[in-house]
Amino acid sequence: MREVRERIRAHEENPLFIHLLSEAELEPYLSALERSEAKNLPLFGIPFAIKDNIDLAGIPTTAACPKYAYVPERSAFVVQRLIEAGAIPVGKSNLDQFATGLVGTRSPYGACRNSIDPEYISGGSSSGSAVSVALEMVSFSLGTDTAGSGRVPAALNAILGLKPTKGWLSTLGVVPACRSLDCVSIFAKEGEEVRMILEVAGVYDESDPYAREERSVAPLALNPKIAVPLKAQREFLGDSEYERLFEEAIERFRALGARVEEVDISPLILAAKLLYEGPWVSERYVAIQEFLENQPEALLEVTRGIIQGGASKSAADYFKAEYRLMECKREAQKRLQGFDFSLLPTIPRPYTIKEVEADPVRLNSHLGHYTNFMNLLDLAAYAIPAGFRQDGIPFGITLFSEPFSESRLIEAGEYFLKGVR
Amino acid sequence: MREVRERIRAHEENPLFIHLLSEAELEPYLSALERSEAKNLPLFGIPFAIKDNIDLAGIPTTAACPKYAYVPERSAFVVQRLIEAGAIPVGKSNLDQFATGLVGTRSPYGACRNSIDPEYISGGSSSGSAVSVALEMVSFSLGTDTAGSGRVPAALNAILGLKPTKGWLSTLGVVPACRSLDCVSIFAKEGEEVRMILEVAGVYDESDPYAREERSVAPLALNPKIAVPLKAQREFLGDSEYERLFEEAIERFRALGARVEEVDISPLILAAKLLYEGPWVSERYVAIQEFLENQPEALLEVTRGIIQGGASKSAADYFKAEYRLMECKREAQKRLQGFDFSLLPTIPRPYTIKEVEADPVRLNSHLGHYTNFMNLLDLAAYAIPAGFRQDGIPFGITLFSEPFSESRLIEAGEYFLKGVR
Repeated sequence: MREVRERIRAHEENPLFIHLLSEAELEPYLSALERSEAKNLPLFGIPFAIKDNIDLAGIPTTAACPKYAYVPERSAFVVQRLIEAGAIPVGKSNLDQFATGLVGTRSPYGACRNSIDPEYISGGSSSGSAVSVALEMVSFSLGTDTAGSGRVPAALNAILGLKPTKGWLSTLGVVPACRSLDCVSIFAKEGEEVRMILEVAGVYDESDPYAREERSVAPLALNPKIAVPLKAQREFLGDSEYERLFEEAIERFRALGARVEEVDISPLILAAKLLYEGPWVSERYVAIQEFLENQPEALLEVTRGIIQGGASKSAADYFKAEYRLMECKREAQKRLQGFDFSLLPTIPRPYTIKEVEADPVRLNSHLGHYTNFMNLLDLAAYAIPAGFRQDGIPFGITLFSEPFSESRLIEAGEYFLKGVR
Repeated sequence: MREVRERIRAHEENPLFIHLLSEAELEPYLSALERSEAKNLPLFGIPFAIKDNIDLAGIPTTAACPKYAYVPERSAFVVQRLIEAGAIPVGKSNLDQFATGLVGTRSPYGACRNSIDPEYISGGSSSGSAVSVALEMVSFSLGTDTAGSGRVPAALNAILGLKPTKGWLSTLGVVPACRSLDCVSIFAKEGEEVRMILEVAGVYDESDPYAREERSVAPLALNPKIAVPLKAQREFLGDSEYERLFEEAIERFRALGARVEEVDISPLILAAKLLYEGPWVSERYVAIQEFLENQPEALLEVTRGIIQGGASKSAADYFKAEYRLMECKREAQKRLQGFDFSLLPTIPRPYTIKEVEADPVRLNSHLGHYTNFMNLLDLAAYAIPAGFRQDGIPFGITLFSEPFSESRLIEAGEYFLKGVR
């Protein structure tokens, strides 16, 4: 734990944590481990970070909004599972306020800086959780992911980010963003860690109305069939290095024996647009309605503007969007049927903190181009690193497939990253 | 077909049909049968009625609103399946306008009269479809069922009414009421007929975004375990005969070897209230928004009033209701787990046409007390007759269980009605 603290102290200028546990706050976790046997606890002594919209008993949850803070009596269901398996909570990590953003700059605690180049954004909203793993302050961390918050910062910091199937990890004890879509997500550096954390945390929680019981799906085929977007649909907003790195990632899968086929991904892009422009923002409004009405000044201006927009949508808007979404979903299912998984860039291009500060809403929306639709379409998604630009900024790809296909995605990720199965 | 016409003519004063097929309109169906072999067609020559919110090619669909009428080029997916299996469409049956109602009186074509006592309502909204089966004008008929329209008129006319699992029967070619909840329903007099029609019509329609593929569930246990509501939750609005008939139905199941247990059904009743008072009415508004805005006078006053109410709900209202619904659903699942099926009265008490005309909205809502929640909670429901009051008015019960449990419910119905398995 001393080493953990030193590593965190070495990056004090980067506001990764909203609350770091004191020695006194850590003591109960450490002494519980002293009374246990390491071999009985799969995560014995492993330090982890918790995005500060997920409850840890006795420590304030702020959602990056100091006036919203409350001290929960109980830890979130998933946090409790991890602690019982021996993991040690180190701190509550910084985030885009109310998990509304994909940039990592929308926090009164300061903008998180990229782990590789501090001029660049960390990505968000799970900014502190991603960067603390990238800088090896913790072995793994929990984020949340509604529109891409568990994948965008993974891509920007060259780590693994799993957005599990909606409902697999309980969201009890998590500040809702869009309650019907929210997922708890996992950041780590090794596929085996991701797999183990998913196994430990992914216990069916019958108190969470959105929880679903795991069901089995086919394992990864020996020569997997992979869907990639049509060439014309590969959007990089002018970043030719990202474009090349994506082609190389496809070629690498092909070289490893995969059968790659191009698929028209327009139903996915249409669904992404629905999330961005549609009525789901009303869920963000409902989640904090009373607080927002009583203390509007407590929110950052950009966050308030977005969430307030949820007040004016009608139920008719909602149902029209749902019907279009159901059509997108059916189309997507038809097109992706028979593929082991699909492959996309995680983000179209990276941005500097300066760029985002100059144009915060538009650039934020660009970052969600390849991520926004996953939860709406009920897909499991796994963001993994896939090389670096000349300037050292990482590129990332996302593997995605049907609900409960995580094991397949993690295996494919290992295959890609290590070249062996 | 001559006999069918004579039976229909014998009840001409009862406005059961909005359009009866002429000899010329019937001709193509009859000549197609002449070219086929009866043994290849499971429904060879069987006459059926189609609720007039379901398309039959070349015949107007009115949804009981003459100014809304259009002539579809193609039959609804399920109608086409039945015709291909040899069934003969006889007519388009009367309904509560836009399937909005459970009474059978809300139609500009006239109030359908009960098949047993013409002073009583037929029930709705699938009024003509239910009564034409009860009076043996047709062997079976199609209705639709969003809030009870396929079950309430079955109860009031002592016939079988199956509301299948949401998404099993395609709703392509059906005028939407609440598109996310609508089901095509089946009326018949024999369980075997219901089973066969479900099999013929229940083909997965990949063009219907709400279509679901059938999955297998456990068959009926030898001594089934049946959930019934707590005594205090058995609501009959003062109809002591209905109350007694329900007790007798429970006793009959018990005598046949079932294990009957009382369950607190409050999550079901709460969900029913959500449908009645909540934002789903906005779906009815979305379904005919343009027509309603251009020609509001084309609707009956009561129907317009209800559907217009859908314009003013917010997306925030919707999500709040969805969260409560998800909680109801989880609670209901917990309580009904382990039961082969559950048992409720289909309606709390019957009404005369005069009573409904004097108090159209309130009495209509009473009729949905035991039916409103089924689609919201994703349940399959089967309404069957269960005796008669002294004055001859029938009483009905509804058997319901998890999605795709229809076979189990139909078997349990046969068991109840015939005492043999």
